[in-house]
Amino acid sequence: MRTKFHVAVVGATGAVGREMIHCLENLDFPVQTLRLLASERSKGKVLSTKWGDITVEDVQESSFDGLDLVFFSAGKAVSLEHAPRAVASRAYVIDNTSAFRLQSGTPLVVPEINPETIGRTPCIIANPNCSTIQMVLALKALDSAAGLKSVRVATYQSCSGAGQKGIDALIEETQSALNGARSTGSKVHARGIAFDVVPQIGAFQADGYSEEEQKMMQETKKILSLPSLKISATCVRVPVMRGHSEAIFITTHQKLSLSQAKQLLAGAPGLSLSDADDMNNYPTATQSEGQYTTYLGRIREDYADDNALTFWIVSDNLLKGAALNAVQIAQFLLSGGHIA
Amino acid sequence: MRTKFHVAVVGATGAVGREMIHCLENLDFPVQTLRLLASERSKGKVLSTKWGDITVEDVQESSFDGLDLVFFSAGKAVSLEHAPRAVASRAYVIDNTSAFRLQSGTPLVVPEINPETIGRTPCIIANPNCSTIQMVLALKALDSAAGLKSVRVATYQSCSGAGQKGIDALIEETQSALNGARSTGSKVHARGIAFDVVPQIGAFQADGYSEEEQKMMQETKKILSLPSLKISATCVRVPVMRGHSEAIFITTHQKLSLSQAKQLLAGAPGLSLSDADDMNNYPTATQSEGQYTTYLGRIREDYADDNALTFWIVSDNLLKGAALNAVQIAQFLLSGGHIA
Repeated sequence: MRTKFHVAVVGATGAVGREMIHCLENLDFPVQTLRLLASERSKGKVLSTKWGDITVEDVQESSFDGLDLVFFSAGKAVSLEHAPRAVASRAYVIDNTSAFRLQSGTPLVVPEINPETIGRTPCIIANPNCSTIQMVLALKALDSAAGLKSVRVATYQSCSGAGQKGIDALIEETQSALNGARSTGSKVHARGIAFDVVPQIGAFQADGYSEEEQKMMQETKKILSLPSLKISATCVRVPVMRGHSEAIFITTHQKLSLSQAKQLLAGAPGLSLSDADDMNNYPTATQSEGQYTTYLGRIREDYADDNALTFWIVSDNLLKGAALNAVQIAQFLLSGGHIA
Repeated sequence: MRTKFHVAVVGATGAVGREMIHCLENLDFPVQTLRLLASERSKGKVLSTKWGDITVEDVQESSFDGLDLVFFSAGKAVSLEHAPRAVASRAYVIDNTSAFRLQSGTPLVVPEINPETIGRTPCIIANPNCSTIQMVLALKALDSAAGLKSVRVATYQSCSGAGQKGIDALIEETQSALNGARSTGSKVHARGIAFDVVPQIGAFQADGYSEEEQKMMQETKKILSLPSLKISATCVRVPVMRGHSEAIFITTHQKLSLSQAKQLLAGAPGLSLSDADDMNNYPTATQSEGQYTTYLGRIREDYADDNALTFWIVSDNLLKGAALNAVQIAQFLLSGGHIA
């Protein structure tokens, strides 16, 4: 049995790709060799890692030969083209794009919730959408205890959800606004994001929901194995660099007292209750930067219905919302003996 | 019968006070004399108005002699002390603070909704909270047609909700963050507001709701005369200068089709449906700046319940959320013959 493995990151120079490398480093992932792949544009860049300086290569047909594990975070098109090739080379793929998430038979995994959906032969494992992951950590605990009936969520999603270019656009547009320039829209976000909040992430579908909202609703049902869950989302881009916040309103089939709910959530894996001792210690996005924990606060009875609660949840969208969750899936593949 | 009236604005140099003067000007309010009052600190400042340059005075016992109408927007303490005096001088008071809003017998008025609650003798009329006003414009239309059952709202409230100093803090903190400084909190907002969103406006009450959330919940019930309405709010300060946005989730007793709801809301007084013809024309805060209309968009079925809808509503919090609504109340006092 080997103790170290051959790993690749596709999209290694992007905001999430870089965090994937950091997570592999910080979590002491047993890497034998690390291959960094990216688009033609980034070819030849050298990244310093725990396993030495590594030159970025572009993706070739032979790129996946001999690999145990490949992380994809280079956009949907790259995953659609290359992820099946990597699996054909007998590597497990952990894909951070939406390419395969809702495909029947593709496990969509949050390791604290449903790692058992991963099969014993190399396959594509989908990493859920950032805004979904942090929410389901809390929903799972409530569902297990009292049966989740409905979910409404309004998000406050940071610009890094659109990658490094999303952050760059925020900074540039904000500087421009402070200098008195009138907004001329955004190169990256659906609207100018300087000193505004934009209730659109992705294109609108026929029913009026955006792509991001559809992702949250459909992925949540799949991860929790609750196909009939009543759920709606309003996804909003806010002028924050990193860290997604969410206001969540839920109802359960059985009544949960506030103290029961607090106890459940405080004990849920991956979650931390920030303001258990002092209401003023609620979490915010900037505090979540660089943190591996998802923070929950402001939990209270929701007066809008019976058996209803409302709370606020914050996580670093590049970490638990993307890179960290992906590397935690990889850790499960090792501990579960899927890769050996 | 007189055709022009004696008017005062208390708090004339503040963000809302200045907008009150602009609204009086823009709406051709028939002003005979305009008295501008403020704190000791602003005494002696001269403001240019349609009715000439006016020197700001501090509030004295005799300040309200001979006035028909006094607008208060100088904080709760000033209203508590001086508004009853103004009424004793036989002036109608329109008070923009929370001092009297929930007091039994004090009319809490949105002119499109419940102006009939104003009596025929000089009294204090409370102007509702900014985030409440824009919401109830939509709720009223839905309630009248189908009976409002529940409301959940998550807000995205701009920094001008804390006055000019709230905007100044946003600009200063944002510049500081762009220069690489670490946040040291905020002098005005509950937390540092640069590139963050803060789920606290006002102090938290025993049940975990903030003062702002309590205002939205209690005022909405009062304005709509629905004391048993099931309503909850999560109020969040966002790094926006001006204009409040709200994600609203409602249920009704009778079923409303989406097209019925759109028609109702498009026809509701004070409201405009921004994206009726094109889903991409949803409103945002920066667009609402300086506008007298409240904009609604993104209305769609809410999958979280039966008879449920969700939508997005945006308004200039200093205008319909404060100054404009106050001046519209004053217009009603004239047209209704309360002041003659």
